[in-house]
Amino acid sequence: MKNKFVEPDYLVDLVQALNRLPGIGLKSARRMVYHLLQYDIEGLEILSKALINANKNLIRCIKCNSFSCQQICQICSNPDRDNTILCIVETPSDMNVLESSKIFNGLYYVLMGKLSPLDGIGPKELNFEHLIERANTDKNILEVIIATNFTAEGETTAHYLSDILSINKNIQISRLSRGIPSGSEIEYIDSNSLAWAFIERKKTKISK
Amino acid sequence: MKNKFVEPDYLVDLVQALNRLPGIGLKSARRMVYHLLQYDIEGLEILSKALINANKNLIRCIKCNSFSCQQICQICSNPDRDNTILCIVETPSDMNVLESSKIFNGLYYVLMGKLSPLDGIGPKELNFEHLIERANTDKNILEVIIATNFTAEGETTAHYLSDILSINKNIQISRLSRGIPSGSEIEYIDSNSLAWAFIERKKTKISK
Ligand SMILES: [Zn+2]
Ligand SMILES: [Zn+2]
Repeated sequence: MKNKFVEPDYLVDLVQALNRLPGIGLKSARRMVYHLLQYDIEGLEILSKALINANKNLIRCIKCNSFSCQQICQICSNPDRDNTILCIVETPSDMNVLESSKIFNGLYYVLMGKLSPLDGIGPKELNFEHLIERANTDKNILEVIIATNFTAEGETTAHYLSDILSINKNIQISRLSRGIPSGSEIEYIDSNSLAWAFIERKKTKISK
Repeated sequence: MKNKFVEPDYLVDLVQALNRLPGIGLKSARRMVYHLLQYDIEGLEILSKALINANKNLIRCIKCNSFSCQQICQICSNPDRDNTILCIVETPSDMNVLESSKIFNGLYYVLMGKLSPLDGIGPKELNFEHLIERANTDKNILEVIIATNFTAEGETTAHYLSDILSINKNIQISRLSRGIPSGSEIEYIDSNSLAWAFIERKKTKISK
């Protein structure tokens, strides 16, 4: 960053550090720094401590691979969850969305990414071994639902996982269905989603 | 914050700390936290260190009251600046804007706020004594330009400062002019600015 202002180095360093966060431009970063220094030194100290604590204490749950303060996270150690179904998601945020929807009460596995050969992210980088071991050694698991995104990379990841996990004949592998979002009007659906809704159409009975 | 997700405490604490920054909603804060934890632990450490350093090392310049790493900041200690003119601004951001415009080469005094009786911010809270002492003891100063904002509170502050500083007859007090922004079309100017442009109109000669 070329600093066009005459500002103290430590202030500029903090602006740059905040500017590194996703979605924070230089202007917002500078506004935040002045806000903290002028009006919220307590907030600055809270943020500083929160960063140190998160860095020091957050580990990966050995079962689901998501962030946790314990070796086994709250979801994985909850006896009320259905331990016969394992849902594979790309990120903790995806898990959060499913959790808040309350439609799923099984267990998760968080990939922490997706296959992306162009970025050099393959099965090794995502530590698929860990997931495969989990699926094959946990005798409770009867079904694995692959809930990666319906993007090119998410689909590639889903195909790959489906192939390697289906070697284990004791587990049913499934994938979330594609189609028209609930509450949508056909008129406004993109043609790609519409095509998939036709291809993956379900047989149904119209009651008379 | 009610946490609708099952997330580790240290992660939630960090989300909340970022959420406290101006302009950062809960959703953006959470996105930042996952970004840092998943892809940019180095960025997390840099931010954490930058916060600690800023908190520990940034002090107020004893001359201009702005943030500085030294007792006297770079601008105040620069011998090339015109030390006969002192420009009073509300915030370091205002100073930055003037600096980057390069129209002013004098010295500054940063109020770090504005008079705001409703919020309990009076001359004492803004430490006007320090400014008055500065203006009266620095024999180089010939003119003080009041560049507080043209808002109700900025105007109140300007009037108050003008009154107390003009007791010193050796100093010329001035205020930035109000009017129509350069490059603007009359059609689109708010009526308030237009009214001021009439009231503060300047005599001029039209060359034939
Ligand atoms: Zn877990
Ligand atoms: Zn200074």
